[in-house]
Amino acid sequence: MYRSHTCGELRITDVNKQVQLSGWVQTSRNFGELLFLDVRDRYGITQIVFNNNTNNLLFDRAKRLGREFVIQAEGTVVERSNKNPKNPTGDIEILVSDVRILSESKTPPFTIENETDGGDDIRMQYRYLDLRRNEVQEKIIFRHKVGHEVRTYLNTNGFLDIETPFLIKSTPEGARDFVVPSRMNPGQFYALPQSPQTFKQLLMVSGFDKYYQITRCFRDEDLRADRQPEFTQIDCEMAFVEQEDILNMFEGLIKHVFKTVKGIELGGDFPRMQYDDAMRIYGSDKPDIRFGMEFIEMNDLVKGKGFGVFDNAELVIGINAENAAEYTRKQLDELTDFVKRPQIGATGLIYLRYNNDGTLKSSVDKFYNEDELKLWAEKAGMKQGDLLLVLCGNTDKVRKQMNELRLEMGNRLGLRKKDDFKPLWVLDFPLLEFIEEDNRWFAMHHPFTSPKKEDIDFLYTDPARVRADAYDLAINGVEVGGGSIRIYDKGLQAEMFKRLGFTDEEAQKQFGFLMNAFEYGAPPHGGLAFGFDRLCAVLNSVETIRDFIAFPKNNSGRDVMLDSPSTIDEKQMKELNIKTTL
Amino acid sequence: MYRSHTCGELRITDVNKQVQLSGWVQTSRNFGELLFLDVRDRYGITQIVFNNNTNNLLFDRAKRLGREFVIQAEGTVVERSNKNPKNPTGDIEILVSDVRILSESKTPPFTIENETDGGDDIRMQYRYLDLRRNEVQEKIIFRHKVGHEVRTYLNTNGFLDIETPFLIKSTPEGARDFVVPSRMNPGQFYALPQSPQTFKQLLMVSGFDKYYQITRCFRDEDLRADRQPEFTQIDCEMAFVEQEDILNMFEGLIKHVFKTVKGIELGGDFPRMQYDDAMRIYGSDKPDIRFGMEFIEMNDLVKGKGFGVFDNAELVIGINAENAAEYTRKQLDELTDFVKRPQIGATGLIYLRYNNDGTLKSSVDKFYNEDELKLWAEKAGMKQGDLLLVLCGNTDKVRKQMNELRLEMGNRLGLRKKDDFKPLWVLDFPLLEFIEEDNRWFAMHHPFTSPKKEDIDFLYTDPARVRADAYDLAINGVEVGGGSIRIYDKGLQAEMFKRLGFTDEEAQKQFGFLMNAFEYGAPPHGGLAFGFDRLCAVLNSVETIRDFIAFPKNNSGRDVMLDSPSTIDEKQMKELNIKTTL
Repeated sequence: MYRSHTCGELRITDVNKQVQLSGWVQTSRNFGELLFLDVRDRYGITQIVFNNNTNNLLFDRAKRLGREFVIQAEGTVVERSNKNPKNPTGDIEILVSDVRILSESKTPPFTIENETDGGDDIRMQYRYLDLRRNEVQEKIIFRHKVGHEVRTYLNTNGFLDIETPFLIKSTPEGARDFVVPSRMNPGQFYALPQSPQTFKQLLMVSGFDKYYQITRCFRDEDLRADRQPEFTQIDCEMAFVEQEDILNMFEGLIKHVFKTVKGIELGGDFPRMQYDDAMRIYGSDKPDIRFGMEFIEMNDLVKGKGFGVFDNAELVIGINAENAAEYTRKQLDELTDFVKRPQIGATGLIYLRYNNDGTLKSSVDKFYNEDELKLWAEKAGMKQGDLLLVLCGNTDKVRKQMNELRLEMGNRLGLRKKDDFKPLWVLDFPLLEFIEEDNRWFAMHHPFTSPKKEDIDFLYTDPARVRADAYDLAINGVEVGGGSIRIYDKGLQAEMFKRLGFTDEEAQKQFGFLMNAFEYGAPPHGGLAFGFDRLCAVLNSVETIRDFIAFPKNNSGRDVMLDSPSTIDEKQMKELNIKTTL
Repeated sequence: MYRSHTCGELRITDVNKQVQLSGWVQTSRNFGELLFLDVRDRYGITQIVFNNNTNNLLFDRAKRLGREFVIQAEGTVVERSNKNPKNPTGDIEILVSDVRILSESKTPPFTIENETDGGDDIRMQYRYLDLRRNEVQEKIIFRHKVGHEVRTYLNTNGFLDIETPFLIKSTPEGARDFVVPSRMNPGQFYALPQSPQTFKQLLMVSGFDKYYQITRCFRDEDLRADRQPEFTQIDCEMAFVEQEDILNMFEGLIKHVFKTVKGIELGGDFPRMQYDDAMRIYGSDKPDIRFGMEFIEMNDLVKGKGFGVFDNAELVIGINAENAAEYTRKQLDELTDFVKRPQIGATGLIYLRYNNDGTLKSSVDKFYNEDELKLWAEKAGMKQGDLLLVLCGNTDKVRKQMNELRLEMGNRLGLRKKDDFKPLWVLDFPLLEFIEEDNRWFAMHHPFTSPKKEDIDFLYTDPARVRADAYDLAINGVEVGGGSIRIYDKGLQAEMFKRLGFTDEEAQKQFGFLMNAFEYGAPPHGGLAFGFDRLCAVLNSVETIRDFIAFPKNNSGRDVMLDSPSTIDEKQMKELNIKTTL
């Protein structure tokens, strides 16, 4: 036993108790007669005090205790004269009778404080020290709580936590696999799962009915800020259900997590939106509906008035930024620069101000008279003081551009409030998308997703038109989960693979086990997976998932703390029957 | 909604209700006028009945419903005239008004019954059908329950579930790593973790204090019946603790699991035994203490009487098999054959019968007179009717041989009762073991295990003598978990690596991150890991872990259902900068 109490535990009611604390030295303040140490553990900070008059030897020892030393101190709880109401233990301190160094520390390369002086790189290299900082530690503990509540809800609802294998078979459809050479099967490779998709479907075929797993998944993709080569999924599947059953079950899960972890009641049913509408109204399949600013389609008002840019555009759309009519020239230029950035790629931005004095002012006054502009304002539902921002171009592109501008305006106008959470189901995604580069159709969700019954015939005549029984849950503009009703008929599954360009032989080789399983009585089933890392980030209203991962990798897929990946021994490669081609 | 109730739910109190059930056809019995189907899901079996007189069309449809078809039936709950008290739903049946085939089934390749006609290979190939069998399904559900209760206990005790990475760095010490080529870092490899050992230690350095994770681990070893290349560990670590704290915490965990999952109270403290004593008394570091039959060391009684076999042996030991004096010649021959099997490797077996008439009879009567044999019997605590079995040879070898014989006799005499659970802590394992083949010392547990303070000096003079602060938990002769107090001092850790034959450079390259971490204030810490698969097996008194794994691999590390591992595309290998050398 190294401690009788933690550093977050003692209160005024503990005065006079003999206690033992262990922890890290946060700060040391020597006033000559008295020396104060703040001792830290994950539960809190307690002040301990050494008196030079009463114990000179001990005082001298205390002077040696530097930042991040691990110590064990024994003493008496006393009331503080100078209380600290900000600290739960701030009413008391420990008058130390004995202290022992458990472990010394070099001066850490950055300060262990919320406001640290350490940059990203050094903190990643010394991740074990970064994890000592309160705000990082809290995020890891937060993740633990979310995981726990997810399990509580699913267990209560009769789901079974069933583990599926990590050493599986490579199936090139989808993202790139990480592969693992097999020593016992020379020349052959396992793959790490991109998701447990086929296994959870097999579990439904087996009759397990309600399955979940919080499990690691792997994708060898080029990384972005919010992507990791390994990430964790809350993976769920149910049998004998329709889409409605699944939406209800997992709406319940999200409500449970918000309530238990954040203390927030998400009342009422989550709104639902068709994918087509989401794209038309928000230019996004995961719209942030904390604010309106819906797209206004303006083709009928703007065409044929001699303004070639609009006349030649497939689609002209505007958004009404309320109370932004007083934006300065500079602010408007900033917005123009914003939409012209290569990542967004618009050629220009047109505006219409509805001034507070009732006049209208537009950057295209030359082509549109006041009456015409009034019709714009009317269609956009503008009030005096509002600002209409207009983009035009190819339908798909301009919608994506306007989505970016809308989110930017939402930020600028303070409409995306951190403590406001607005979930949204987006339904009926397209089943297939045509990728020009590969000149073939790809499954938008994955090849196991069921087309909507009423659209199946279009598979042969107009594949783009086939909608899927697929759904995503977006919260505040972030996709936190998605899923679908699955195909459970061997014939339809085979047809899907054919549409995706698989020969029968390829389909059988890669997914034969699943199609064979469908021949022995497969129940209707469907499911959903949440990105656990991302869900944690969204619940905290932050964008990067990295802080919620104890040991994340950088954008080159490296763990800079471990210095991994690394070269391996010749002997290892020889045993695995591989060599590098470098 | 495909069902209003499950197939395990309806009771006599539900009579007259209109219900919908969905499930698999277990059996069909056509009596001409009435046709009965047993419909199965994971909750139970309900009988549904079709009446040819009242609905002839429906009856004809029902005749088509074969084994393992998935159906949805609607009807009224009625009381059965012929009740089945063995089935919880056996008081009622459903008089069907409508039925729908959700999915047809070919005749399954083996019967979906506890007593199936399918052999191992076919059941593994069609694992999704094997998983439909009640006894297999129950084991998967059992595992879910154990996992849930483990989490409940650990969460309640303040442990944090923290995920550690799967793509880590290869460290050849220990078993063989599975490796993963990195596309983004050409020529470099990740390794899959053999355990999260170093990460959980870093989490202690970070101050997380109490950590756990139920996580997959990977070892590329040659497989045995109860080993899988991937397996699951309940991995735990605590800071500011001594061995006693850890033993108490995890004794509590095991008691909690037994109580909640099995309804068994394991009263009192778990017994503890020194490793040295376990080896001396039972010839095993995981003795089955459901029965006694302790080793009797007989050197002082048997040597110098002219029996060369004993005279030349380093150690002569016996076990007293109670009430086995009447073993026939044939039975004794079987035992002799048993110990002479190459896996055991004894050269022979000597016995002494203490007959019920008080006489003594031994296979070495020629060398020992009745008085001498009486001394044997006395030392062994034999009663009339007992049988003493004696082996001799090199100390280490004969103990291992006698351990096998003891367990065999335990089985034969019915002393290893399935419903009897006897946990045992085995303490103070040796720190190091010398492997002749490699001509160097290896860490018996792992290189991070702390030597016992009082033995540290022997590190330099007599490494074999150094005991570790390491402990295992055995239940009924199976090691279900093990752990140790860790080194948390950089100097001692460096010294350990030196003892294990690492150069400073190698140690720094492979484990530098950990030793560096120890320079910034590492708390004393220790932990333990349970084999989750094995714990489930032990709780069920079965030997193979495979049934507790939804999708296990065979002894060649193959998943015969997936046909994995398999070859991968040239394109994949090119991207990874590797090729096979076959």
